[in-house]
Amino acid sequence: MNTFGNLFRLTTFGESHGKALGFVLDGLPPGVVFEEETLRDFLERRRPGGELVSARKETDLPEVLSGFYENKSLGTPVACIFKNKDQKSEDYKDLKPRRGHADKVWLDKYGIQDPRGGGRSSGRETVSRVGGAAFAKMFFNQFYPDVKIKAFTKSIGPIKQKSFDDDFIQSSQNQGLGFIDQLSFKEAEVLLKKAKEDGESYGGEVEVKVFNPPSGLGEPVFKKIKSKMAEAILSVGAVKSFSLGEDVNLSLVKGSEFHAMKASVYGGVQGGITTGDTMTFTAEVKPTSSILDVAKKGRHDPCIVPRALVVIEAMTYLVLIDLVLNNQIYKKPS
Amino acid sequence: MNTFGNLFRLTTFGESHGKALGFVLDGLPPGVVFEEETLRDFLERRRPGGELVSARKETDLPEVLSGFYENKSLGTPVACIFKNKDQKSEDYKDLKPRRGHADKVWLDKYGIQDPRGGGRSSGRETVSRVGGAAFAKMFFNQFYPDVKIKAFTKSIGPIKQKSFDDDFIQSSQNQGLGFIDQLSFKEAEVLLKKAKEDGESYGGEVEVKVFNPPSGLGEPVFKKIKSKMAEAILSVGAVKSFSLGEDVNLSLVKGSEFHAMKASVYGGVQGGITTGDTMTFTAEVKPTSSILDVAKKGRHDPCIVPRALVVIEAMTYLVLIDLVLNNQIYKKPS
Amino acid sequence: MNTFGNLFRLTTFGESHGKALGFVLDGLPPGVVFEEETLRDFLERRRPGGELVSARKETDLPEVLSGFYENKSLGTPVACIFKNKDQKSEDYKDLKPRRGHADKVWLDKYGIQDPRGGGRSSGRETVSRVGGAAFAKMFFNQFYPDVKIKAFTKSIGPIKQKSFDDDFIQSSQNQGLGFIDQLSFKEAEVLLKKAKEDGESYGGEVEVKVFNPPSGLGEPVFKKIKSKMAEAILSVGAVKSFSLGEDVNLSLVKGSEFHAMKASVYGGVQGGITTGDTMTFTAEVKPTSSILDVAKKGRHDPCIVPRALVVIEAMTYLVLIDLVLNNQIYKKPS
Amino acid sequence: MNTFGNLFRLTTFGESHGKALGFVLDGLPPGVVFEEETLRDFLERRRPGGELVSARKETDLPEVLSGFYENKSLGTPVACIFKNKDQKSEDYKDLKPRRGHADKVWLDKYGIQDPRGGGRSSGRETVSRVGGAAFAKMFFNQFYPDVKIKAFTKSIGPIKQKSFDDDFIQSSQNQGLGFIDQLSFKEAEVLLKKAKEDGESYGGEVEVKVFNPPSGLGEPVFKKIKSKMAEAILSVGAVKSFSLGEDVNLSLVKGSEFHAMKASVYGGVQGGITTGDTMTFTAEVKPTSSILDVAKKGRHDPCIVPRALVVIEAMTYLVLIDLVLNNQIYKKPS
Repeated sequence: MNTFGNLFRLTTFGESHGKALGFVLDGLPPGVVFEEETLRDFLERRRPGGELVSARKETDLPEVLSGFYENKSLGTPVACIFKNKDQKSEDYKDLKPRRGHADKVWLDKYGIQDPRGGGRSSGRETVSRVGGAAFAKMFFNQFYPDVKIKAFTKSIGPIKQKSFDDDFIQSSQNQGLGFIDQLSFKEAEVLLKKAKEDGESYGGEVEVKVFNPPSGLGEPVFKKIKSKMAEAILSVGAVKSFSLGEDVNLSLVKGSEFHAMKASVYGGVQGGITTGDTMTFTAEVKPTSSILDVAKKGRHDPCIVPRALVVIEAMTYLVLIDLVLNNQIYKKPS
Repeated sequence: MNTFGNLFRLTTFGESHGKALGFVLDGLPPGVVFEEETLRDFLERRRPGGELVSARKETDLPEVLSGFYENKSLGTPVACIFKNKDQKSEDYKDLKPRRGHADKVWLDKYGIQDPRGGGRSSGRETVSRVGGAAFAKMFFNQFYPDVKIKAFTKSIGPIKQKSFDDDFIQSSQNQGLGFIDQLSFKEAEVLLKKAKEDGESYGGEVEVKVFNPPSGLGEPVFKKIKSKMAEAILSVGAVKSFSLGEDVNLSLVKGSEFHAMKASVYGGVQGGITTGDTMTFTAEVKPTSSILDVAKKGRHDPCIVPRALVVIEAMTYLVLIDLVLNNQIYKKPS
Repeated sequence: MNTFGNLFRLTTFGESHGKALGFVLDGLPPGVVFEEETLRDFLERRRPGGELVSARKETDLPEVLSGFYENKSLGTPVACIFKNKDQKSEDYKDLKPRRGHADKVWLDKYGIQDPRGGGRSSGRETVSRVGGAAFAKMFFNQFYPDVKIKAFTKSIGPIKQKSFDDDFIQSSQNQGLGFIDQLSFKEAEVLLKKAKEDGESYGGEVEVKVFNPPSGLGEPVFKKIKSKMAEAILSVGAVKSFSLGEDVNLSLVKGSEFHAMKASVYGGVQGGITTGDTMTFTAEVKPTSSILDVAKKGRHDPCIVPRALVVIEAMTYLVLIDLVLNNQIYKKPS
Repeated sequence: MNTFGNLFRLTTFGESHGKALGFVLDGLPPGVVFEEETLRDFLERRRPGGELVSARKETDLPEVLSGFYENKSLGTPVACIFKNKDQKSEDYKDLKPRRGHADKVWLDKYGIQDPRGGGRSSGRETVSRVGGAAFAKMFFNQFYPDVKIKAFTKSIGPIKQKSFDDDFIQSSQNQGLGFIDQLSFKEAEVLLKKAKEDGESYGGEVEVKVFNPPSGLGEPVFKKIKSKMAEAILSVGAVKSFSLGEDVNLSLVKGSEFHAMKASVYGGVQGGITTGDTMTFTAEVKPTSSILDVAKKGRHDPCIVPRALVVIEAMTYLVLIDLVLNNQIYKKPS
């Protein structure tokens, strides 16, 4: 239930307002060097700061409890916890059941529910995903250094990112709010400032590029890479859709045209298996739901697309490393 | 790799031009009465016939080898095979590697490939999914008779189905090509007849409704029902995207509007768990890829949306039964 | 439930008196050459013939339906069926519930049961295990030709096999009834002929040697090789115990003596992981239970130890190949 | 690798001399009341104290981080850690590779190894098993209060426990060293005091009784309860064998006699499924291996049978709860 992956298994635990959240990672190969910077960078990107996005000042200090000796992975489980310091559950006290939240369905299902901030279904749970995926990124950094995964904001409400070619995307840094260009960021900044004042919110789209993926990832029937990727991305709370490849308007584009298009419409996948071409997929993110209720407490995210980027990137790493390890199985024995 | 599901596990096998295809189903509860009609109906819907859609006249006769005694399920594995009769692999002989097919990536990955008609990555594999899901449908028919799953054609190329309310959708029969209304069917028929002559093809969209789903299906973190459903639907060959709930244009709709909308924009899911409201999701299907090459042999599908309906419906059954059985675990022991 | 293994997954199906039994094998690497002789030899050893052991003349003709192309494995599932011809379920009609059989517990558990010859809990199910394991043996023959697995009869009732050194065991052929030496066989033959006349039965012990096993198989905590091997061997119907390494009488042997003993008392395993030394383990097999009831129909096994040998050998292959494939995962990526 | 169980999944982590050990438990049903006493009792029994058994004074203080709210389980993962305080890895510094330890095979397998006290293959790992199983025991205490699991010392070296009937075993408290009667304890105490002086060690046997087990636990083919139990018990480091039912000398007992014996020779299992009768099984435990090397540091266990009791009892709970939850799946939907 709380485990993702088959060979690289990430198990997450912890309620949003409990003592601690954390994860156990089973399947990290031995010999991976610990990269503190990679872990910190991932965790910081989860709380991009700035007035616009979130007023929460969580300090997510990871404590790695096991799996490494003298900075090298042992091939044993990596456990890591994040202690909760500032547990103001009274902030949430009068609000339940919250509109658009899972509290009520959870209560019906389990007969019991942690009323403090959503418990396991809180967005806070993603700290464990992001933390765990940082170790997958270390693996790629060291063994597949060409692989680069980049998630960026494609749109926030009516503001749409310009279309760029892959080389530009790969070489550029994200600007504010996850946009690639400064102009889109500035427009969105104005939009979201206003939204924050009004207690309004916006959804948007995330685009993900995987540059230089290994070819041959995925299996032809139920473990197609698009299938595992869709599963991963839709497991993120606010995500509403997954689409492989660039947008194609199927009401306008005939088959003869579709199949003459560039590789990116296929998303770098044929028959469920990576071809080695750049992978592309997009996801839609819903507008924040806790507009009215939580807003009065001063904690209002007018848009979670920027925060979702690193979570979606993390899930992409988890899918890729699992399939990379899976492909090892069928190498010629030696 | 070739197994779908956790508690209701469908394992499929067989190459498109091998001796037989088939499946083993492990996890069907004991006491389910065999419904020949349900199985036959599902299998027939896979080859909707008509000149438009496919010239193939596969006769998919299921042979159920195990799991039933005197027409009642034993709780043991249900094995079923479909023998291949008419194995004209020479039809495919000169065509490889086929454009837009998985043949090449497969060969790179495994070092060996069945060149006859795609082997495991052929659409023929779906006969096993549809056959297996028919047993899930029998389970619902007998233990959850209110649950109805209905997949229908939302669009084929530029032809778009009208929007209907849920009551009408539930009570109506699909017309030709999977459309609900006769007019859309007739328009699409003209389009596809022309496409067949021209060697052209079209993609489209499938919409799925689950009426009266049990509430409480899905788990809050990685096993959200939207996550498992996306995985299932994207495991179907030609599917390009999955979207939960009715289409919402997030560049036009603000959060305050979104959250005031009717339940169907949520798709009947909150926090990854079914609420008991009608579930809604859509999937985009790519245009057929084998336009030019296979066409000359007289086997050309100008659109596979109608054929995909029952496969998508089948995958929906597989996800639902797995989560229904999963919910049994946490019932109060008695 | 009906699947064994993690990476090399054998799913078996079929009731003893249904239409067919069979298996699906998922995880056989691509490029394994089909060896008809290996398969036939395994299947024949399941019915060692001779008046003593069983009067049943099952002809287990395997039909391989998938997974091979031009005699080479494709890396896709291998499905294989064994049709039941001679279904004399009336032989069993008046006998239920049978003493010492699982019929009653099964009925209580599932609320339904196939009364014909035990259904899934019949020893007939092992035809699928033996058939499936033959493909694992092909893998070892071709990629790890030094690995040899040999199961032999250590005792039948009061008749005990002499103790031989490993070189002799490896180089010798089993004599009758699975004994290594002719004398033990002859003594046991006399014993069992008499037992057959008397409607009596005997249990005994099986010893297994794995010569030249790869080192490093098994994982240090829950997937110790002794743990997986015990699971496998105890999954065989009549097996009562599993013991790693040669017999040591712990009431006589002190620690200082134990740890000075030869490697075979450790069974070739340290800390749950193979050392590369010859593996040794033994299993006790209960006396046949269907002494009185089935005897009158002329189908009486006075001892099933000889028949169990190949089943135990098969399970050993299944454990080993799974752990060999598992070790591939952590090879340095290249 | 580091997870045990299918529906009640215990994942353990931590090196013996790392920062902490611990576990995550996924699958504990909601509504189980936390019993501190049950947890503490299990943990204390792991270090039975007394000069004889171990000089280590580990204080295993569990910190439960998640899964409970106001003392009731939420149905979410239960994470628990045990911090290591006293990490004298220098005690072990000059000893490697240790005789009879897994250090060397581990190093060969993974290319890296935590040299401090065995890392993951240390007996210290069992603190997580025992801690996790305490939650399974809470479940049984509250939902199946009749079920009682009792492991006791059957022999230590030449000292053999007398044979008692089930009623006496169930009602009695273990005396010292895990024996049921005082006399055996006293004899063994003398033996082990002497052994400690001499740097000698002894193995022995553990017997387990499960009183009032639910009937119908286990599945007929690969998930027989004897198979899962053997897997569980052999996953404990020093265990050498598993035997279902009471000892029967198969060289003396004929089938006709065997099948006339009392239920306990079957161990409460028929066809791989519990009958509801008392379950009985035994396990042999090897003599401690670290006799000479560790002894000089003053940390010498002359016999680990008493310490192994609670670990074996814990593994028994893990198997039982998994099968109890599994049986829930096939209950009639309601």
